[in-house]
Amino acid sequence: MILSALLTSVGINLGLCFLFFTLYSILRKQPINVPVYSPRLFAERKTQQQNYFNLERLLPSPGWVKRAWQPSEDELLSISGLDVVVFMRMFVFCARVFTVASIIGVCVLLPINFLGNQLTDDISNLPTKSLESFSISNVNDGSNRLWIHFCAAYVFTGVVCYLLYYEYNHIALKRIAYFYSSKPQPHQFTILVRGIPNPAPSGRTFSQIVENFFTEYHPSTYLSHTVVRRTNKIRSLVNDAEKLYRRLGHLKSVNSHQTSKRDGCLGLFGRKVDLVDHYEKKLEDIEHNVRLEQSSFAGEEVPAAFVSFKSRFGAAIALHIQQGTNPTEWVTEKAPEPKDVYWPFFSASFIRKWICKIAAVVVCIALTILFLIPVVLVQGLANLDQLETYLPFLKGVLRLTFVSNLITGYLPSLILQMFLYVVPPIMKAISSMEGYISHSQIEKSACTKLLWFTVWNIFFANALSGSALYLVNVLLEPKKIPSLLAAALPAQATFFITYVVTSGWTSLSSEILRLIPLLCSYFTRLFAGKDDNADDFEVPCMPYHSEIPRVLFFALLGVTYFFLAPLILPFLLVYYCLGYIIYRNQFLNVYAPKFETGGKFWPIVHNSTIFFLVLMHIIAIGIFGLKKLPLASSLTVPLPFLTLLFNEYCRKRFLPIFKAYPTECLIKKDRENQNDPTMNEFLEKLSTAYQDPALMPVQYSRSDDGRSTPLLQPLDV
Amino acid sequence: MILSALLTSVGINLGLCFLFFTLYSILRKQPINVPVYSPRLFAERKTQQQNYFNLERLLPSPGWVKRAWQPSEDELLSISGLDVVVFMRMFVFCARVFTVASIIGVCVLLPINFLGNQLTDDISNLPTKSLESFSISNVNDGSNRLWIHFCAAYVFTGVVCYLLYYEYNHIALKRIAYFYSSKPQPHQFTILVRGIPNPAPSGRTFSQIVENFFTEYHPSTYLSHTVVRRTNKIRSLVNDAEKLYRRLGHLKSVNSHQTSKRDGCLGLFGRKVDLVDHYEKKLEDIEHNVRLEQSSFAGEEVPAAFVSFKSRFGAAIALHIQQGTNPTEWVTEKAPEPKDVYWPFFSASFIRKWICKIAAVVVCIALTILFLIPVVLVQGLANLDQLETYLPFLKGVLRLTFVSNLITGYLPSLILQMFLYVVPPIMKAISSMEGYISHSQIEKSACTKLLWFTVWNIFFANALSGSALYLVNVLLEPKKIPSLLAAALPAQATFFITYVVTSGWTSLSSEILRLIPLLCSYFTRLFAGKDDNADDFEVPCMPYHSEIPRVLFFALLGVTYFFLAPLILPFLLVYYCLGYIIYRNQFLNVYAPKFETGGKFWPIVHNSTIFFLVLMHIIAIGIFGLKKLPLASSLTVPLPFLTLLFNEYCRKRFLPIFKAYPTECLIKKDRENQNDPTMNEFLEKLSTAYQDPALMPVQYSRSDDGRSTPLLQPLDV
Repeated sequence: MILSALLTSVGINLGLCFLFFTLYSILRKQPINVPVYSPRLFAERKTQQQNYFNLERLLPSPGWVKRAWQPSEDELLSISGLDVVVFMRMFVFCARVFTVASIIGVCVLLPINFLGNQLTDDISNLPTKSLESFSISNVNDGSNRLWIHFCAAYVFTGVVCYLLYYEYNHIALKRIAYFYSSKPQPHQFTILVRGIPNPAPSGRTFSQIVENFFTEYHPSTYLSHTVVRRTNKIRSLVNDAEKLYRRLGHLKSVNSHQTSKRDGCLGLFGRKVDLVDHYEKKLEDIEHNVRLEQSSFAGEEVPAAFVSFKSRFGAAIALHIQQGTNPTEWVTEKAPEPKDVYWPFFSASFIRKWICKIAAVVVCIALTILFLIPVVLVQGLANLDQLETYLPFLKGVLRLTFVSNLITGYLPSLILQMFLYVVPPIMKAISSMEGYISHSQIEKSACTKLLWFTVWNIFFANALSGSALYLVNVLLEPKKIPSLLAAALPAQATFFITYVVTSGWTSLSSEILRLIPLLCSYFTRLFAGKDDNADDFEVPCMPYHSEIPRVLFFALLGVTYFFLAPLILPFLLVYYCLGYIIYRNQFLNVYAPKFETGGKFWPIVHNSTIFFLVLMHIIAIGIFGLKKLPLASSLTVPLPFLTLLFNEYCRKRFLPIFKAYPTECLIKKDRENQNDPTMNEFLEKLSTAYQDPALMPVQYSRSDDGRSTPLLQPLDV
Repeated sequence: MILSALLTSVGINLGLCFLFFTLYSILRKQPINVPVYSPRLFAERKTQQQNYFNLERLLPSPGWVKRAWQPSEDELLSISGLDVVVFMRMFVFCARVFTVASIIGVCVLLPINFLGNQLTDDISNLPTKSLESFSISNVNDGSNRLWIHFCAAYVFTGVVCYLLYYEYNHIALKRIAYFYSSKPQPHQFTILVRGIPNPAPSGRTFSQIVENFFTEYHPSTYLSHTVVRRTNKIRSLVNDAEKLYRRLGHLKSVNSHQTSKRDGCLGLFGRKVDLVDHYEKKLEDIEHNVRLEQSSFAGEEVPAAFVSFKSRFGAAIALHIQQGTNPTEWVTEKAPEPKDVYWPFFSASFIRKWICKIAAVVVCIALTILFLIPVVLVQGLANLDQLETYLPFLKGVLRLTFVSNLITGYLPSLILQMFLYVVPPIMKAISSMEGYISHSQIEKSACTKLLWFTVWNIFFANALSGSALYLVNVLLEPKKIPSLLAAALPAQATFFITYVVTSGWTSLSSEILRLIPLLCSYFTRLFAGKDDNADDFEVPCMPYHSEIPRVLFFALLGVTYFFLAPLILPFLLVYYCLGYIIYRNQFLNVYAPKFETGGKFWPIVHNSTIFFLVLMHIIAIGIFGLKKLPLASSLTVPLPFLTLLFNEYCRKRFLPIFKAYPTECLIKKDRENQNDPTMNEFLEKLSTAYQDPALMPVQYSRSDDGRSTPLLQPLDV
């Protein structure tokens, strides 16, 4: 690829981004789009009535940038919680790293690369220059200038480690401060106990066993417990009831729309009222079944219980010390927030859970390694010749140059992209089968899985461009990895630069435009004639498990290409600066937190950055060897070990803070609440906090519809 | 090697063993040898007076075998503690494993190997048959008989895993029972706190800081604390004093012997009395210095303290929950028994300790990998030609056939053995620099190090017989390991069989004969004219760190050669049966426990057995491949994974029990002691239990010598 082609591509994508931003700034001012662009405000009914039309609504304005930029970190913390702050710190951290990297890369390394003449000695015509001449490949073999690259690797590693330390420290302090400032919450006082011993020999229930055990061994702190019950059956019944209720509501609204003479696509047939009656009867039947199941439910206890304590420290004691003499019984873990509990998990026993976990790991590794095989097969089918064979009637169309270009040029990558879109839900499904007890843990686990998946299937598969089994073979010969990577990566630099510009920048602008929710909202309004209602409106939540790996993948590109092809760095810097503004805007307006882990996503960011650094060092060792500077190659060997030592230190220094709160904090918080008169009320509520929603009373039928006034209100611009 | 040669070697070694046992059974009956063969009884003065001479004393008798066999496991437990029981269980476990293995190996595999004709088709003359024809090498390539080996590998793995599970369970139960039956002990109520924050800003001492912290956060359970002080200087002074005192005592005894007209080698000069005076003055000076140092010691506190609690559960709470917000401060760990504390460790800070640990690991790995290089170099010097060059005056002697045979045949292995004898102390020294706080932890760590060292330098170095760096290269190409091992190991079978017979059996008989202590005792009596005295007599303690790796190494040989060369198995069975009797005898008579870890050595045995199994599987994969039975090779692949899964299950099921005691046990024990009237007294003593011995009052000079009546008493036979 030549420089001018890159600049063209950058220009086009920059133009697209501005177009998207302009569109966004207009669309978001339309009252009808409030549920799409400001669902948080819509759900909280904070949007003011402003139905009159004005010209300003049709003009793009940069006001949203200012509003996204303005709130301080503490304000963001109070609005959206610590997880959001941690997510934004990831952008701040990456922006800082790539600012430093850009300065070193563009001011020092780029000129040195450019002045080499390994590839060509013609420096006259800049625009037609191959991008390769900006990469390390252009430096002469054995040249002493490579020592500058060597120093740059050390300096860059030092800077990144310093920034990592700084961020880890900053977030750890924030986490402690967040805990100190928190109100008493059920999950602080509760633990989950699994593996309750079988009560059959003593003829008692699980509930009695738990009661006995904790009054025996934690007499002064034990408060209450809720034994978990097997509710799969009820849950499916309740789901059926909910579906029926929705359909019923829809039918009724169609009826009401007809009387008020509005268009309804489905409101043309005569059987409607009968249908409503029929559904209502069915709903009543189901509700009756649910109530029956709920009442006849004594025998269905699961050997797991949420046990609540009178103080946070009491819960911590039971959490941290092994309870029974058999370590597979009375297994304790922190309870998640009540709304964060993933209820379907509880049916599995210790052994079954453990086997599920192993199976999940195996499936995940197999999926990661073998993912490319089906993709390549399907892409093979998309070849022109094969298409013509299978679908002969397309022959005429396929012979057109434009169509054939489109198919050969875009179809393969389109298929890859489509497959990639399927992966995050699959990973989440695998994680949820692993027996995690909360949505947050599932997302965290899926996040790690997806990160490895991305690194393997986008980075390694593209860089080494071999079959999956060839890649596995490479891993089995660790000695060859540095030279293999060093030989393959510089050639892929241009591909990854365009990847940042096209995939990275575009993903940001499509994130802010929310094209799919926008279209969905139009289509539902158009076809179903359904108005949005703030009551049963669900605010979307941030899919951390797919977003964090995507953002970190660009950091991987930046870190590994830092001294191979520094040209990539300014584009990354732009990506992170843009991302900072855009995600801030989204958190303030769109996404509501579904759970609060207290910043537990940060260790993933930290660990993967360390991995990227070590990968960079391995590549450096390989490339100095290829460039015939063996001394530099050997002198780089300590660098990964030093980095891993640094990581080990950070693990000791910070990781425990992210695992549990220390005695000091717990007791201080407990003392603070001791004289609080509202504590008694809170402790009373605690015993019912962890109630399975499937066991809540159900009442859908004959309920008041009450949807007469649609709540669409325009946003103040 | 042919069969008859092996039988000769076995015969010779068997004869040697019986000779040693006969010698032992005579020597142990001599009253003068009581301190060598029954130091435990000697120290406890349990040996009865029996000075009259009888003929029985000169006749060998097998009574000691019966006495060693008789005590039950519970009796052994009460006499010597749980660690000894665990050590003996290792022999029981190995004996069981190799009984099963011998039955399968000798009855099934050996005939199959022998009936093959890959190596030779002459089965007429048994005694001149090569030992190779009993190994798997003799089975024809691609023969279906190899499936029997395949089945044997599965069956053997199953049996070993079952036995492992059984033993782990047995020892875990024993450990809990041992805790329940124990009296209140200081280390159950105490934790060690390191990384006490710097008190300088507040102007307080470490002691005050500790007091404040624990009265603040553990008000109901905190009892007292002892801040550790830097005592290196005092300790060296006390050591000096002790040496002087011994020399003085020796001088005085020489004097007294002279007056009582007994021979003394050194008692012939006139300056003695002056010397005594001189030494006594010097001793007084040193003692004065010690007292000065002890009193002027306020400023030398170390940021570490032993903190005692009123209950075991109280100590466990402080132990298991992170205390301060900074995880590198207030680091807690279990306190060792007071006599087990390794006092010199305390001077290091968190960071320094951590760096020491990393350095120790690096040194240890380097020593393990590069050990063979100096050995080979020194062995090279032992070549005849080089010896002649360096020491020309030996030329005449070296030309004698006998001498040259000796030097070329035995010197290299002698040098290797001598180097090997130096390794256990070196490993222990490395471990003690790692910052462990107790002798038991140091021995445990040294034990693991030595185990890897032995596996690497005896097993791999002999099997693959290449240079150290070649071996490291092998490790870097993991794909080749199975076939390399499979090709190399069968050839080494005869070497390892003779190794078991010579090194294994001989080490046992020399263990029981205690040749070096015997000679030492004779020489000190002969030259120093010193009588043993039960007062300052030190009972030897078991060097677990060198014995466990040695015993386990033979298990490694047995497991890996189980289906390669089953001929090794009966010899191993003999080794373990002999070892069982001999070590029982030693524990009852010779070794006194220096510390009690409560069976914490067992996980080492378990983990290494798992490693041996996996190694066996890897070899099996390789050998089935070499023998052209690729299907068996592929079907063996799941076996290591299943074994590792089994290990993972055991880790979850049993390991936590070996790390700490659960709430259930702690609270039961605490309740038991609640109404005990002696507890108050015990708790009072607790506050001074962890006093550095260097800070104890010193009084050597002018002390009463009181050694007039030597306490040599003959043993009842």
